[in-house]
Amino acid sequence: MTFTINAEISQFQGKLYKLSHESTSTKTPMDVNVFVPPSSNSKIPVLVYLSGLTCTPNNATEKSFLQYFATKYGFAVVFPDTSPRGAKIEGEDDSWDFGTGAGFYVDATTDPWSKNYNMYSYVHDELPKALAKEFLQLDFENISITGHSMGGFGALSGFLKNPGKYRSVSAFAPISNPSTCQWGEKNFTNYLGNNKEDWYKYDPTHLIADYKHENQPKILIHQGSKDGFYYKDHQLQPEIFVKAAEESGYKGGVDLRVAEGYDHSYFFISSFIEDHAKHHAKYLGLIE
Amino acid sequence: MTFTINAEISQFQGKLYKLSHESTSTKTPMDVNVFVPPSSNSKIPVLVYLSGLTCTPNNATEKSFLQYFATKYGFAVVFPDTSPRGAKIEGEDDSWDFGTGAGFYVDATTDPWSKNYNMYSYVHDELPKALAKEFLQLDFENISITGHSMGGFGALSGFLKNPGKYRSVSAFAPISNPSTCQWGEKNFTNYLGNNKEDWYKYDPTHLIADYKHENQPKILIHQGSKDGFYYKDHQLQPEIFVKAAEESGYKGGVDLRVAEGYDHSYFFISSFIEDHAKHHAKYLGLIE
Repeated sequence: MTFTINAEISQFQGKLYKLSHESTSTKTPMDVNVFVPPSSNSKIPVLVYLSGLTCTPNNATEKSFLQYFATKYGFAVVFPDTSPRGAKIEGEDDSWDFGTGAGFYVDATTDPWSKNYNMYSYVHDELPKALAKEFLQLDFENISITGHSMGGFGALSGFLKNPGKYRSVSAFAPISNPSTCQWGEKNFTNYLGNNKEDWYKYDPTHLIADYKHENQPKILIHQGSKDGFYYKDHQLQPEIFVKAAEESGYKGGVDLRVAEGYDHSYFFISSFIEDHAKHHAKYLGLIE
Repeated sequence: MTFTINAEISQFQGKLYKLSHESTSTKTPMDVNVFVPPSSNSKIPVLVYLSGLTCTPNNATEKSFLQYFATKYGFAVVFPDTSPRGAKIEGEDDSWDFGTGAGFYVDATTDPWSKNYNMYSYVHDELPKALAKEFLQLDFENISITGHSMGGFGALSGFLKNPGKYRSVSAFAPISNPSTCQWGEKNFTNYLGNNKEDWYKYDPTHLIADYKHENQPKILIHQGSKDGFYYKDHQLQPEIFVKAAEESGYKGGVDLRVAEGYDHSYFFISSFIEDHAKHHAKYLGLIE
């Protein structure tokens, strides 16, 4: 096995694997958690969960409650990390919203980040291929994606940049138009340079305007109304994404649910994870 | 309000309150989390969850998923802390399994612990009375108790020492016979002295032998088979408690479920919290 099994934990009648492996994309060791439900299905569908700023694979694994519904519906879950760690690049640990814990799910093109900060290739290409070779019961041809905040951005971006790869996508409080918010500007400038055309290649609001593939599932987004990153800092801006989807004629539409009184935390995520699990279970062919 | 509200968080359509207050039992500030479900019931039943060694109120709040089922069934949850903090007693921070984070839910009788380490009175008397004055919708006359490890001990002990106070009791991997395990011996010696008769007043295995009250609900216990504290260190010993209950003729019986492959972590707790929530919901009159 190319993965080291750091822990194998029983949960909800399934198995949670805490793994690490050497990534060719990031040229660092990477941690990843995989939950396999107690399914007799020889082709278990997979949901990828991309975490937000500062998170490791463990945060969502411990606090999202996704595994409960993974067992209920019969899909596996992959929880990747949010950046390379220990790349030893000057400045990578200087701020909480850039560098370590903040890979932003792009392939960096600037020096010195381009050597290691290639989370786009890692998450959408290298990791699923590597896992598919080892977890033969998992069907990486039947895969969906979700995520939170920076990971919600990563999920939307990855779905729209890889037409047909993911059956469905959803997001919790996603950074929906990173080209026009402080988090996106900071990370895109550092990882991708100053040319905004290069930013738009990852920006969901720009990507959906040009999305033409026949696979146009409904996009489910939850946003807490009391999330300071939403109503105060305007880092998230899901309404701009909804408008872009409408103007582009995206057939599935965006189901944006602003949840009154909810914040940006895992208490918000766990409160609506059932809706997202059900959403994906439908597109993964597990329920009607 | 005698409680300071440090946070009010929306979760599962209910409200999670992170509170602190000055305790007369411990003579320190104490943290406590309270989850109130979205119930129109003017008398919401209450489940107390006692945490294990090292935990604060936040661990179970973040990782047990009890609140999901609290909303489903309609009971409130109280998550107390596991000890006084900052009592400034020499030695209280020297080990992870004694002192801070390890109050053991007893009233200490030895010097210097007896001044502050009075978690028994705090949890079973002071805290519910204080909360009842502020949370008028909660019905502290209709209350049950559960807990994990040290908290499982605390739940069983508190139930058996207060006949009729709690409608039902359950436990995850409880320290079932603390008088005969290393954790119990260490804590009881320090908090209660060397006379074992004083230990037995808190030991569930001794208490159930003398339990006579008419309220004898079924006692639900889950234990993971791969829990090192169980099969290697023999700190938990639920079988001894089951035997004592049988010999005493305890009418409700003990339903001990040894879960194959599960460990001592919150992954174990979250896997079986649904069974415990349902168990208590029944005794609290919320379901048939």
